[in-house]
Amino acid sequence: MKGFRKLIAASAVAPLLLAGGVMAGNNPVDENWWPSELGANDEAGGTGYITPQKRIEAAKLVKRGKMALLGHPYSNHMPLVPGRTFALSIPGAPTHGPLNWPGDNYSMTFMDELVTAEIGQVGTQWDGLAHPMIRIQGVSGWKDGDYFYNKNRLQDVETARGMTKVGTEKAGGFFTRGILIDIAALKGVARLEKGYSITLADFRAALQKQGIKDATQGDVVLFRTGWNSLWKTNHLGRPAGEKVKTDEQLGKDNAEFGSGEPGVSPEVCDHLASKKISMVGSDTWGLEPYDFAKSGAPESFAYCHMNLIARRGIYNFENLDLDDLSADSAYEFLFSWAPLKLVGATGSPGNPVAAY
Amino acid sequence: MKGFRKLIAASAVAPLLLAGGVMAGNNPVDENWWPSELGANDEAGGTGYITPQKRIEAAKLVKRGKMALLGHPYSNHMPLVPGRTFALSIPGAPTHGPLNWPGDNYSMTFMDELVTAEIGQVGTQWDGLAHPMIRIQGVSGWKDGDYFYNKNRLQDVETARGMTKVGTEKAGGFFTRGILIDIAALKGVARLEKGYSITLADFRAALQKQGIKDATQGDVVLFRTGWNSLWKTNHLGRPAGEKVKTDEQLGKDNAEFGSGEPGVSPEVCDHLASKKISMVGSDTWGLEPYDFAKSGAPESFAYCHMNLIARRGIYNFENLDLDDLSADSAYEFLFSWAPLKLVGATGSPGNPVAAY
Amino acid sequence: MKGFRKLIAASAVAPLLLAGGVMAGNNPVDENWWPSELGANDEAGGTGYITPQKRIEAAKLVKRGKMALLGHPYSNHMPLVPGRTFALSIPGAPTHGPLNWPGDNYSMTFMDELVTAEIGQVGTQWDGLAHPMIRIQGVSGWKDGDYFYNKNRLQDVETARGMTKVGTEKAGGFFTRGILIDIAALKGVARLEKGYSITLADFRAALQKQGIKDATQGDVVLFRTGWNSLWKTNHLGRPAGEKVKTDEQLGKDNAEFGSGEPGVSPEVCDHLASKKISMVGSDTWGLEPYDFAKSGAPESFAYCHMNLIARRGIYNFENLDLDDLSADSAYEFLFSWAPLKLVGATGSPGNPVAAY
Amino acid sequence: MKGFRKLIAASAVAPLLLAGGVMAGNNPVDENWWPSELGANDEAGGTGYITPQKRIEAAKLVKRGKMALLGHPYSNHMPLVPGRTFALSIPGAPTHGPLNWPGDNYSMTFMDELVTAEIGQVGTQWDGLAHPMIRIQGVSGWKDGDYFYNKNRLQDVETARGMTKVGTEKAGGFFTRGILIDIAALKGVARLEKGYSITLADFRAALQKQGIKDATQGDVVLFRTGWNSLWKTNHLGRPAGEKVKTDEQLGKDNAEFGSGEPGVSPEVCDHLASKKISMVGSDTWGLEPYDFAKSGAPESFAYCHMNLIARRGIYNFENLDLDDLSADSAYEFLFSWAPLKLVGATGSPGNPVAAY
Repeated sequence: MKGFRKLIAASAVAPLLLAGGVMAGNNPVDENWWPSELGANDEAGGTGYITPQKRIEAAKLVKRGKMALLGHPYSNHMPLVPGRTFALSIPGAPTHGPLNWPGDNYSMTFMDELVTAEIGQVGTQWDGLAHPMIRIQGVSGWKDGDYFYNKNRLQDVETARGMTKVGTEKAGGFFTRGILIDIAALKGVARLEKGYSITLADFRAALQKQGIKDATQGDVVLFRTGWNSLWKTNHLGRPAGEKVKTDEQLGKDNAEFGSGEPGVSPEVCDHLASKKISMVGSDTWGLEPYDFAKSGAPESFAYCHMNLIARRGIYNFENLDLDDLSADSAYEFLFSWAPLKLVGATGSPGNPVAAY
Repeated sequence: MKGFRKLIAASAVAPLLLAGGVMAGNNPVDENWWPSELGANDEAGGTGYITPQKRIEAAKLVKRGKMALLGHPYSNHMPLVPGRTFALSIPGAPTHGPLNWPGDNYSMTFMDELVTAEIGQVGTQWDGLAHPMIRIQGVSGWKDGDYFYNKNRLQDVETARGMTKVGTEKAGGFFTRGILIDIAALKGVARLEKGYSITLADFRAALQKQGIKDATQGDVVLFRTGWNSLWKTNHLGRPAGEKVKTDEQLGKDNAEFGSGEPGVSPEVCDHLASKKISMVGSDTWGLEPYDFAKSGAPESFAYCHMNLIARRGIYNFENLDLDDLSADSAYEFLFSWAPLKLVGATGSPGNPVAAY
Repeated sequence: MKGFRKLIAASAVAPLLLAGGVMAGNNPVDENWWPSELGANDEAGGTGYITPQKRIEAAKLVKRGKMALLGHPYSNHMPLVPGRTFALSIPGAPTHGPLNWPGDNYSMTFMDELVTAEIGQVGTQWDGLAHPMIRIQGVSGWKDGDYFYNKNRLQDVETARGMTKVGTEKAGGFFTRGILIDIAALKGVARLEKGYSITLADFRAALQKQGIKDATQGDVVLFRTGWNSLWKTNHLGRPAGEKVKTDEQLGKDNAEFGSGEPGVSPEVCDHLASKKISMVGSDTWGLEPYDFAKSGAPESFAYCHMNLIARRGIYNFENLDLDDLSADSAYEFLFSWAPLKLVGATGSPGNPVAAY
Repeated sequence: MKGFRKLIAASAVAPLLLAGGVMAGNNPVDENWWPSELGANDEAGGTGYITPQKRIEAAKLVKRGKMALLGHPYSNHMPLVPGRTFALSIPGAPTHGPLNWPGDNYSMTFMDELVTAEIGQVGTQWDGLAHPMIRIQGVSGWKDGDYFYNKNRLQDVETARGMTKVGTEKAGGFFTRGILIDIAALKGVARLEKGYSITLADFRAALQKQGIKDATQGDVVLFRTGWNSLWKTNHLGRPAGEKVKTDEQLGKDNAEFGSGEPGVSPEVCDHLASKKISMVGSDTWGLEPYDFAKSGAPESFAYCHMNLIARRGIYNFENLDLDDLSADSAYEFLFSWAPLKLVGATGSPGNPVAAY
């Protein structure tokens, strides 16, 4: 474990963050990353922090009888991490039928769609425990390999059709308090700057403005940055019959959307971890702050992914649409959702329900 | 519209059902099928029956702080309607990374899964308004074609990437009272017989036994038949490293599962339609009763699909797992779920939350 | 058919080409486009021009006992027309087995790959007769619609699983003389300029330099521009274990490759059509010349696609690798290949054999 | 290597075959399986046995100017090994366009198809060197793992997107003599019995009847059993607009087709290996004889797969259509074909050309 110790030393002598910029030199996880605080054999992760009492209290937040859906539309032209796929094809004719019906003039037909995608890792997506891994090489006491949450080594748990441990179907569901941290509103901007790193002070200022004390155990904490306004200006599905010169004209802000993002700083993630929340989320594609054109990929990145998901089993929901909640000043709400039980999968698509 | 009139006459002189068996000669829809009671331009369907007050009342059903998830696991070996696909592949190595990390011994990697499926029409599946169609040929006043809900003709609304009308992304979400109609428990059997048709008398007897008055506007009404016990005895995902002689040994009850099913009779669907529920659902693959070996496909089938979805926009949720609710005698609960916003799609996979 | 007549008039008074640039104002097809010269009911297209005698003569071109394979490697990082997909996933463990074997120390396993792609229209690709369509609206005597070769209207021949007419499985195979037209060598450049339009004079100069008289009936005529050198500088499949900062670093010349291309002028395609060749092909992604940044998509484009494939059934093979033939000065060869019999499909991937 | 030695001993005391039945107790490979006779670093396999002189001689077999295509049509209803997928979807509208064209009445559109399949291992399929593996556990001197041809361990060569060794793109192409071994004709039957094992005596009798001396180095040797007549009675692609009661009616002989097959005995495979042929092939799905209902999977199976592909790099082509060759008494022919260069893949689809 000498490697880890060296990292800790390195990070102790250097400031963790360049405020408002891209972090560098920080230590993604330390040697205490395993076992998880939820137990060495735990496979359910952060949903384990949600108690029956928490659920009862959360249901009481439904006062106005309103509901917001937090998922974006999925279409062939939505932004994707390079190399990933979302291909939906509506067949050229009904896939089932015509089926019997009395008389000659009527019959029944049915249509379906064929979709191919890294279905748990495109668009509005929930990162499960079988998504991020810590690759360890040449560390005494550890077999070389890629490690999921709770020391589950990829090479030991993978099959052709899913992981035998920490797959999506083990996660259970979220029925708990959700809180919105509306940083875009706090700063009075439509969209935070690319690379902006949300500080603990920002977090606290937003809470105070919104009249919430702090995150508590089992909460789902969602950060709104406005970054997905870039997504919303795109074509979401191609219009029928429209004459366009080339397909290049679709999805025109996808490149900017993927070129970086504002995000949550390590100190905020550490704070949320200390509160034992069940999940963090945002309206960005990757939670942490990046500006690839300015600084390339940071020396170490995905701090929150590693410290929340891989180390603690605290989930992360990406590419949420939080605009309706913001417009409605719905800062506290019932968050109700469960991932698809995709056996052994790494994540799930979703369209979570927020009721208030 | 003469064809419709003839059908009505035919169905008026013949009993609608052979009790306990497969219906024959009934009339799937009548000439009043369009426009929908929700308005001629409606694209949201039954979620429009759910009011803010209904949502507030539904949240109050969360008394014990318990939660049941109603989705089945999705795997390559689950039963499928012939011709459909569910193929999940975990890549042979991480798909992203190794990415930078301070020091030589650590790096970060990420895994995803590639899935191909008629994603809205496999496993636990929610039928949207762009799924069932009425094919009309040679009827005066109607262009020949396949018609979705509210007279949306396939040929007019389809694009390569989704329907421009009545797609899944238009449906909104369900946050309402759910009620379980546990017919298997009522009859004291693990599993109703194949082809058994649940009567209105059965429905009322179950309600009375369970202490519920009747379905009311906006409800989600779920029928438990026990039929999915066939599914549960299957391999759900292939065990790693197990020696088997051939893949034939997996999914061994899939054929029986798909050979028919108990289901809901037309009179029950008509009753539920009159109550303006938002959705019906069941633990079967297709809602209505069939026994293909005994009687082939019935002369007219999918009565509920046509009269609820295509005619009225009342949704249908198939292949739910209702066993936890049954075991917990949770007959009334908050049903909270929204379909994935798959642009222009015909349905959605799901793992709905029932809280009580 | 007045519309067609108007087009002819327009094209008669204007020069067809801007030499070395992008064509404009030319007439993609004229009113004689249907029926095909191969017969009004023909579905096999240009393979019908290959006679038994032609095959016997072609086989005699194998003098050196050498073979070149003309397909590019297919990988997740190859260039694609925007919106298309090539996703190959190697499962994380063997997909079949372990299967029985005598003794305890050995068993058998098998691996496969899951691929999703517009399989006939990605990478090295052969355009079948069910690919290009002429959309006709408001022309007297024609039903509105999209027309394939020989007046087969999409709306009449499409099913969910393939076209009932002019599908790939109807095309037969190519066993005939192939000739290389090496324009890059003629001009003494590694790669022709983007947008360069190969003239009939270029075509004749290359033939003369190479010692070939002209194209004759049934030939496969392949143009080498050097454009695919952009492709070859890409990563073709991701190296194992290499540390990269982001996936952006892969496929870095794909954008330039797709931003335009040198190509074949209308006059050359008209000449080849008059010779009744069976197929044209090139080392570009789309045969015709384009320079999108300079001139956008030309007013009318895909002249050769329309006049060869849609009008005459003469096939087109895209993204061929002709470098080995060029290096070996193999200007005449036996071309031997047949498309995959994908029922009702629009094209086929391929790796054609050239023997000489 | 003690395990291997034990196996050899076991097989030495028992007859290798039950004539006409299913083999049992034989030894799939012996300790000499590695390195390959083609060299310890070879990745191209059996194509290495084809010399320039062989190619020149093969071309001379084209005497009649005829061509047979040996691939079956690929469709959603073709028989598949359980768990595999072939899903082709034609989109509901053109995927590209309408694109510019002079005038108002015309424009251009293009169609493609979305296919998902284990593309190298469905339908007419060619087994590459990255398909069969020998799993070794607990053998001194060998790391545990799954081994491809030439001791390439899966765990060392796999990436998410393909194998770094012995992938399909390394195989080269086949331009060589093909010979048909028409056992169905020899026996005077339309289809050999399920489980029938073709003996060396059968092989020699067929050769003699057909006037061929024996297989020689570099040959492609194709066995015709008539078993694919079961496939041919199936629907190959669904007819448009046909009324059927259920999809069960399609592909009705697929179960019988997959329930077993006649095949090639170990002694024949050993003989062919001794002749250094480049490839074996057949009109069956798996080359070796099986009758699963009678005897289950044999104790050891895939003898030829293991001894030809995994041990020697001699390829295997499955599900060929050899009926045209048989009808034409075309026993010797030019076999010309190359697999798709699918980077790192396990196999390839195909439609080989036989010319004579």
